[in-house]
Amino acid sequence: MGSNDQKNRLQAVCVPPIISSLREKTNKQDMRKLIHSFKVGIALVLVSFLYLLDPLFSQVGENAMWAIMTVVVIFEFFAGATLSKGLNRGIGTILGGGLGCLAAALAQEVGGIGNAIVVGASVFIFAAVATYVRQVPNIKKRYDYGAMIFILTFNLVVVSGIRAEKVMRLARERLSTIGMGFVTCIFISLLVFPVWASDELHDSIASNFEHLAHSIEGCLEEYINATTFTNEKENQPRANFNRCKSILNSKSKDESLANFAKWEPWHGKFGLYYPWIKYLQIGEHLRELAATILSLKGCLQSQRQPPTAQRERIKEPCEAVGSILTWSLRELGESISKMRKCHAGTSIVPKLKSTRVEISSVSTNCKVDHQDIDHEYQDSGLAMATFVFILMEIVEKVEELAKEVDELGKLAGFRTHHEMANSMCPSSTV
Amino acid sequence: MGSNDQKNRLQAVCVPPIISSLREKTNKQDMRKLIHSFKVGIALVLVSFLYLLDPLFSQVGENAMWAIMTVVVIFEFFAGATLSKGLNRGIGTILGGGLGCLAAALAQEVGGIGNAIVVGASVFIFAAVATYVRQVPNIKKRYDYGAMIFILTFNLVVVSGIRAEKVMRLARERLSTIGMGFVTCIFISLLVFPVWASDELHDSIASNFEHLAHSIEGCLEEYINATTFTNEKENQPRANFNRCKSILNSKSKDESLANFAKWEPWHGKFGLYYPWIKYLQIGEHLRELAATILSLKGCLQSQRQPPTAQRERIKEPCEAVGSILTWSLRELGESISKMRKCHAGTSIVPKLKSTRVEISSVSTNCKVDHQDIDHEYQDSGLAMATFVFILMEIVEKVEELAKEVDELGKLAGFRTHHEMANSMCPSSTV
Repeated sequence: MGSNDQKNRLQAVCVPPIISSLREKTNKQDMRKLIHSFKVGIALVLVSFLYLLDPLFSQVGENAMWAIMTVVVIFEFFAGATLSKGLNRGIGTILGGGLGCLAAALAQEVGGIGNAIVVGASVFIFAAVATYVRQVPNIKKRYDYGAMIFILTFNLVVVSGIRAEKVMRLARERLSTIGMGFVTCIFISLLVFPVWASDELHDSIASNFEHLAHSIEGCLEEYINATTFTNEKENQPRANFNRCKSILNSKSKDESLANFAKWEPWHGKFGLYYPWIKYLQIGEHLRELAATILSLKGCLQSQRQPPTAQRERIKEPCEAVGSILTWSLRELGESISKMRKCHAGTSIVPKLKSTRVEISSVSTNCKVDHQDIDHEYQDSGLAMATFVFILMEIVEKVEELAKEVDELGKLAGFRTHHEMANSMCPSSTV
Repeated sequence: MGSNDQKNRLQAVCVPPIISSLREKTNKQDMRKLIHSFKVGIALVLVSFLYLLDPLFSQVGENAMWAIMTVVVIFEFFAGATLSKGLNRGIGTILGGGLGCLAAALAQEVGGIGNAIVVGASVFIFAAVATYVRQVPNIKKRYDYGAMIFILTFNLVVVSGIRAEKVMRLARERLSTIGMGFVTCIFISLLVFPVWASDELHDSIASNFEHLAHSIEGCLEEYINATTFTNEKENQPRANFNRCKSILNSKSKDESLANFAKWEPWHGKFGLYYPWIKYLQIGEHLRELAATILSLKGCLQSQRQPPTAQRERIKEPCEAVGSILTWSLRELGESISKMRKCHAGTSIVPKLKSTRVEISSVSTNCKVDHQDIDHEYQDSGLAMATFVFILMEIVEKVEELAKEVDELGKLAGFRTHHEMANSMCPSSTV
């Protein structure tokens, strides 16, 4: 009963804030989606004025269509994504238009039936080459859309050249309306409730530390306190591994956020050359840590649970290790989230190193007694040894993470407020 | 020396086929990219004829532009992706055009300044609602492009309605040229060297079994035979975990392939209602298995390696377990790749179950001797216990996989050639 009480108390302390923060996040997310929808609507109404208002329409004519098209295709959720697509479109249009004009001029020089042949050949060559280049992974990641627009514009300009004498004027007019659409998008995307990919990446990496700390807490609590669930099917482990799994699958999301973040101009706390690549490396370490925590699941869900008495023996050292681990992770997460130097090398790493000694003391308690011929007991000893070994690995991985966060602090120039540091990483917190 | 010889022999047997198959695959991949580029070039030349040939141009006029645009934006690498984008574009255009015509007619009814107000309001409302709907995850996954085209077409039609009297004719003409572009794409994408997403998913899932089997082999060989690398930095484990990592990060790729595969028409071996969802489930299990194999890495790279004598004791049973595991994985992979029922329930699962007994015999050999107060030895015992425990988990996960593959065989109607089954899953293969 005592351990159950403790568990309930722990749940009362840990779970509600997590759930309420999740709920808050969902609401915030919904709100952002709603705002984004309104922004798109407003941008489209603004470019529609090119059609709706006579003085404007007399200037741009049917080319107003290109402004609308530009807004529809480049207005993305994140400011960086809009900027990236917009610049890609701009550069693709200029390059494609320029080369298209050249090819059209060349075709006109040739004249006659040769004209159509030159146009057809140039369409084929440029389209095939650009399509091949588009598939190179590094180009695909950043310039895929630009390459597509290049193909489109080149093709349109070169085939129009055969009909329209004034291909240059056509290109200039389209470019100017595309420019209008681009400016409208950028203006609304960056200035009206902007949603920055950089903020998103920063917050998600920082909060992943908290999620992993919470998972470790859940695992340890589950393992040490769950004295009742051996051989009882209904008492499935309740430690929440879903967060770990979603962190494990976060690679592509992180990469695209970092890609957008690189396009974003200076704003708020992030400079122009902010080390986003370091965030990706930290993300990689977080994924490894998540995978290691997930492999604790095997020990928790194993049918071969050690008996309570055996688990009692490792309870105290495990709790100590757990509290240092979660404290370290939270410190690191907070250090990133508040962009404050945490001096991991002098405050966190030594503590983690000292926990290794504690774990060694645990390992003396989880011996596999080979006189025990009963397989079940033997297996349970293995499960416990594995639990302890994985804990050690977690400690090592958190140490690596601490070093990475330290490096990020140096690269990104986190502040070193001495008072702040003192109040944040006191050696007596644990 | 003997173990080194064995290792070299094993490498000579295993590594070259893997490397050569990788090289072959890269070449094949490059070839496919090249062919795709040619196909795009040809499709664009074909639709350019709408401009280039006078009789065609007199029919479609400037609207030929829409055919070119359609080809550029919907021609994707996989046939399913092209089809999905094309149908999305078609449906989005029809819906957007239809509603746009209605709104334009309504606006004309109102007349005067009210006309512009109705147009502006309808642009805002439809754009905002469609943008919000686009962000719903399930819609985003399959219909994102359609929603974008809906917004674009609606907007273009409704604002043109104010100028062009013949908005219906305009819509019809554009739709017909978009149709021409679509037909050109589909024709070339599906009939000229088609690249099917379904084949890609099928092959990638099947080959992941082989990759994981190879990784397990590498791990075991490394652990058991590497008698020299304790405390020697330069002898880093050479077991290849990169494949495991890439499998671990395959979720989004698998999902998009499955999404495209669903759009693909009946072709070759896959029917129209082929259970792609099951492939995703098997992919999930494969990722879990990959994560478990990766956690063996901790044991391999740990500084706390058990001494050779201790490892010698678990050598034989580990090898036996390993050979059954890799055999099972290869059988399952081959069963998928050749679409042949493998009767996992009667042939593979019992073997895996019997290996558990073998592993238990291993666990008697990896006791942690608690008289040994030397921490290093104790830790090495932990590493070994963990190694064995994780092996057990791998066996369990392969069992689950076997059941999933069995189910897939039932759902997808794999053939049950008795002779084939007899020659493929003989009980004496191991």
